[in-house]
Amino acid sequence: VIPGPSRQLRADATRNVERLVSAARATFAELGVEASLDDVAHRAGVGIATLYRRFPKKEDLVRAVLEQAFAETIGPEIERALHEPDARRAITIVVEAALSGIASERNTLAAASHADAVTAEIIARFLDPLAILVERGQAAGLVRDDLVPEDLLRILLMLSGVLGTVDPAGDGWRRYVALILDAIDPAAARPLPPAEPLPSVLPLRHWSL
Amino acid sequence: VIPGPSRQLRADATRNVERLVSAARATFAELGVEASLDDVAHRAGVGIATLYRRFPKKEDLVRAVLEQAFAETIGPEIERALHEPDARRAITIVVEAALSGIASERNTLAAASHADAVTAEIIARFLDPLAILVERGQAAGLVRDDLVPEDLLRILLMLSGVLGTVDPAGDGWRRYVALILDAIDPAAARPLPPAEPLPSVLPLRHWSL
Repeated sequence: VIPGPSRQLRADATRNVERLVSAARATFAELGVEASLDDVAHRAGVGIATLYRRFPKKEDLVRAVLEQAFAETIGPEIERALHEPDARRAITIVVEAALSGIASERNTLAAASHADAVTAEIIARFLDPLAILVERGQAAGLVRDDLVPEDLLRILLMLSGVLGTVDPAGDGWRRYVALILDAIDPAAARPLPPAEPLPSVLPLRHWSL
Repeated sequence: VIPGPSRQLRADATRNVERLVSAARATFAELGVEASLDDVAHRAGVGIATLYRRFPKKEDLVRAVLEQAFAETIGPEIERALHEPDARRAITIVVEAALSGIASERNTLAAASHADAVTAEIIARFLDPLAILVERGQAAGLVRDDLVPEDLLRILLMLSGVLGTVDPAGDGWRRYVALILDAIDPAAARPLPPAEPLPSVLPLRHWSL
């Protein structure tokens, strides 16, 4: 049996971690790659020692921030898309959620990519459900047959390349999502040259946003 | 009347500049943003003072390199495209020339974007003829009507976003050019959200390749 005080301590620790991650997310959003761990501790109202105890490396903290941002912004939209019967609509939901999330968290992503914290694992959490939706769309004849999973990360990179040219607070990127959705429509599909495999190390380090 | 020796001196000077620019292009291609002016002078077989006399700032040299690369790789293809009667084929020629040029000169471009030498002016030299070809395509019913000039730079940025994921010596990027050509085909065109104007300062400084 775990005595009460110890349970209380663990609950405090969990709250502490959540507060640190939220403070870090706000700090990265404001300051981007310039944000220091001191800035984060200051905003969270804890000492730097407490921060280091929970997150020995900046990379760990940045990854936790990414997890929180993903869970709050893209995760629920993926759930919604997986229950959407219209495959084309479902793909639109996921791609728009990704772009909207990348746009609103662009400073956090820059900090993360700087700290090598954008891993293939976190990318897969978005790409794997998208691949399922694309397959459903292909089965329904709504998505061109020759689209392969390797294309999906590249499409995401293509779309995020637009973000530097539109108002960060707006949604000017929607036009290019719509353009890509037309590109994957079978109506215009001419045979594509073959898809090259993705490199074993994804070029996420210098992800420009 | 210009006396002979002076004409000879000027011809030498021109050859000197050409040799410096070619040496710089090879040096940037090999070393990218790390290339120093010492590296360039060494490869050209001239003293650093000679280099500085011709190109007082690294930016000037990088711009001259871009000009040479553009003139040799993209310029002739633009000429060819402007004489191509099939508008869709003409657009393909120009976009493929741009991607092929960006891929083969990616280190030079990285050095140039680092030195703030990728100007709107050099981009326009590519985008202006492309806009003419797109208009021809629209008049011929081969390109969707709602494509606007602001889209063209964004499409170029989208396509260059793929380059980090394919073999630099290969042409895996052709698949995504083909995808974009399908996207601008009227056959699949659904109405697009409005196009946001381009920012007054183009995001070329951090052009990731």
